[in-house]
Amino acid sequence: MSKELTTRAEDYSQWYNELVVKGQLADHSAVRGCMVIKPYGYALWENMRDQLDKMFKETGHVNAYFPLFVPKSLFEAEEKNAEGFAKECAIVTHYRLKTDPDNKGKLIVDPEAKLEEELIIRPTSEAIIWNTYKGWIQSYRDLPLLINQWANVVRWEMRTRLFLRTAEFLWQEGHTAHATKEEAVEETVKMLDVYATFVEEYMAVPVVKGVKTPNERFAGAEDTYCIEALMQDGKALQAGTSHFLGQNFAKAFDVKFSDKNNKLDYVWATSWGVSTRLIGALIMAHSDDQGLVMPPRIAPLQVVIVPIYKGEEGKAAVDAKADEIMKGLKALGIRVKYDDNDNARPGWKFAEHELKGVPVRVALGMRDLENNVVEIARRDTKEKSTVSLDGVAEYIRNLLEEIQQNIFNRALAFRTENTTEANTWEEFQELLDKKGGFISAHWDGTPETEEKIKQESKATIRCIPLNNKQEAGKCILTGNPSTQRVLFARAY
Amino acid sequence: MSKELTTRAEDYSQWYNELVVKGQLADHSAVRGCMVIKPYGYALWENMRDQLDKMFKETGHVNAYFPLFVPKSLFEAEEKNAEGFAKECAIVTHYRLKTDPDNKGKLIVDPEAKLEEELIIRPTSEAIIWNTYKGWIQSYRDLPLLINQWANVVRWEMRTRLFLRTAEFLWQEGHTAHATKEEAVEETVKMLDVYATFVEEYMAVPVVKGVKTPNERFAGAEDTYCIEALMQDGKALQAGTSHFLGQNFAKAFDVKFSDKNNKLDYVWATSWGVSTRLIGALIMAHSDDQGLVMPPRIAPLQVVIVPIYKGEEGKAAVDAKADEIMKGLKALGIRVKYDDNDNARPGWKFAEHELKGVPVRVALGMRDLENNVVEIARRDTKEKSTVSLDGVAEYIRNLLEEIQQNIFNRALAFRTENTTEANTWEEFQELLDKKGGFISAHWDGTPETEEKIKQESKATIRCIPLNNKQEAGKCILTGNPSTQRVLFARAY
Repeated sequence: MSKELTTRAEDYSQWYNELVVKGQLADHSAVRGCMVIKPYGYALWENMRDQLDKMFKETGHVNAYFPLFVPKSLFEAEEKNAEGFAKECAIVTHYRLKTDPDNKGKLIVDPEAKLEEELIIRPTSEAIIWNTYKGWIQSYRDLPLLINQWANVVRWEMRTRLFLRTAEFLWQEGHTAHATKEEAVEETVKMLDVYATFVEEYMAVPVVKGVKTPNERFAGAEDTYCIEALMQDGKALQAGTSHFLGQNFAKAFDVKFSDKNNKLDYVWATSWGVSTRLIGALIMAHSDDQGLVMPPRIAPLQVVIVPIYKGEEGKAAVDAKADEIMKGLKALGIRVKYDDNDNARPGWKFAEHELKGVPVRVALGMRDLENNVVEIARRDTKEKSTVSLDGVAEYIRNLLEEIQQNIFNRALAFRTENTTEANTWEEFQELLDKKGGFISAHWDGTPETEEKIKQESKATIRCIPLNNKQEAGKCILTGNPSTQRVLFARAY
Repeated sequence: MSKELTTRAEDYSQWYNELVVKGQLADHSAVRGCMVIKPYGYALWENMRDQLDKMFKETGHVNAYFPLFVPKSLFEAEEKNAEGFAKECAIVTHYRLKTDPDNKGKLIVDPEAKLEEELIIRPTSEAIIWNTYKGWIQSYRDLPLLINQWANVVRWEMRTRLFLRTAEFLWQEGHTAHATKEEAVEETVKMLDVYATFVEEYMAVPVVKGVKTPNERFAGAEDTYCIEALMQDGKALQAGTSHFLGQNFAKAFDVKFSDKNNKLDYVWATSWGVSTRLIGALIMAHSDDQGLVMPPRIAPLQVVIVPIYKGEEGKAAVDAKADEIMKGLKALGIRVKYDDNDNARPGWKFAEHELKGVPVRVALGMRDLENNVVEIARRDTKEKSTVSLDGVAEYIRNLLEEIQQNIFNRALAFRTENTTEANTWEEFQELLDKKGGFISAHWDGTPETEEKIKQESKATIRCIPLNNKQEAGKCILTGNPSTQRVLFARAY
């Protein structure tokens, strides 16, 4: 293993960056703000994607694929959406390179190959998709359209961080079309629930489901629902959003349908997405000063077996037993690797797998064989136990579930401890600076106050929780009357 | 179903386009040369992708993800590769839009947001990947690197056709790094075999494995291996390529490794790819004048059940039996749909599923229930049989395999019939014009002759088949001595 990690206490941000790179999840690339997702990180993403994809299909959605490019005239059709993304668009203006006449072996953009209309690389695909839906929807019989896309998108961010904010990222974007407002709202909430279930049950990260304030809405949405998670440094992270788009895109792209009575109306829309950003949330929610902590259900590798032996004969005996254990684990569908690399010593391997967050480590030594036992170490608590080889596969299967539950419970306890009510402005500021976390406080409901709180404290309203308790109170900043608390935090 | 299809005899090209669009596989988009892959087409691609991905992983490969963008200076580093793709590159030059001061609600490219260095949208990723590998490879212990990427790429083609040639397409690209030339060549051939196995056993399209002539090589490769398929109009289609890249990219990006004796050497490379173009091959190899013919193993839908009934009571009885059949089929892992849409009549549904190429159609009527039978129609031969409901799931499972074999055999017989030897230039030209197909002929081995044949006949050398028979002969064009026949064809 490479040299020691920066600890969270020393420098949380540095700790995070080191985990991503040394944990083999991703690397910076030669392209400003773009990352390379390394095989270990991509295997994690595949597990997340496959599970989400399954959940989308179980709720009646199908996948499709729409173009990477959005012609500028389509991009600007829904004005709020266009305005919201205009400042971070990568723009294709030319379609050919030519040899540089002044510089042998070099190429220049061919000025004669200028596009008549510039193409925007999709920062999100509402425009190109609703322009397509126009050709697909005529009647109520064509509805609902429940389509999802797995794709790369580009948002030209000025400050980037691996996974959390990159110029290019991978995501899925659902785009659905409905005959009624009620059905579209229902879809918006349903997909928020899918996200919450996924993030809690598979990533083991507890989330608060809520609605964004108008200030924080997706550009072009009537309502933005979100799930918000809390990181170990007390900052919040928006983990997924689901938007009720009303008839905004249908109007911008003139998408109408005739209902059962042959009456024409605009179609109702939703869109919803989660991205590789979720990997950042996963890292910051669970990892510790020794490295990553992977939730077993989506861990690229759930179990690693490290042999400890002397001599060829010892190796043969340990190999044979490892093979047996591997078979037992694989029969239970467990992702396991036998790390019999000769070039590294067991201690080095232990540290390496700890760094990479493999949930369960099995150390298999020659004396263990004699005693019919193995040493099993769990990554979450770092506890070790000596376990009989009889029934070891079932033992590990149960342990993986226990780890999954334990890291969820730990994160939930952390969030509970770090969700605090503030009743005055002083209390609010002190909490933010000394404790962080979610702060539940009254707000007078105006965008002006929200903006002022943001300016003065760097905290934003993360959401108005769903099924929020209604209670009379006074806004922490203005003292004006309020009917409910909302959730504030400083955020990623 | 929509109105009748153009037949192959009337207009093959038009027939193909109609199949793609009316068969619900893909649509043209608002972006020049880019397609929308519709849910039915994307489901087909998912099945193809999942099977290929499984085969890549079984041969030791892992997935990763590299940036969409290639900075121009990296793009031009491997000169032949750069030259080969320079004329079809989409180029990002700006990263921001702004409000048009002269035109309310419109946006213009912000001239102040010009990139210092232009970014090429990857037409293929050797450059960005080998620039990354430079940081990953130091020693022989880091080799081999066996990495694959599923991604979108852009090649600005002037003449585009759905699936066959689109400006943006989806593909996978494997990029491997090796310590020895032998190992890299072995990998190149291994992946060609994986492609051939996939295309023959899953897509049911027979292929010829071969090597390209230097003229037809991938830009930057030392050797390009390929699989070539024959379409029903007698034209060939390159279905996949696997490149031995030598040390070209390692030299361009200065990627060296120290071997066991601490000697530094450049790394050896391969790359290999197949794309959504394969869907075009599948359509043109199997489909007929009634529509698509999907190979069962990758068909989005393998079986459709169409109910035929009168009245509510009839419907209930048929529904109940259909449910039972569905359960039996699903238990065998068969992808089945019950088409109980009230808005369409059985005849319309039959035509629709025929158009979409569903391999097996089950018609379930009220009288059938009384007799404990169903009518089963197979898409490939259009034969219908009356089959007992006892054991119907197993019957259908076997039928699906029979259809898979039958369409492969049919395509193979077609290829055999349409592979002809030509021994004179006149014979060659006549064959090309009257019969088409693969023409096996002697060629003197020079690029000049190859080019001249291409100019005069529009036929190219598709490949020099692997394990080609050596025989003395005379070049069909020049009469110069030749040691083997090569495979010519007009091609997509």
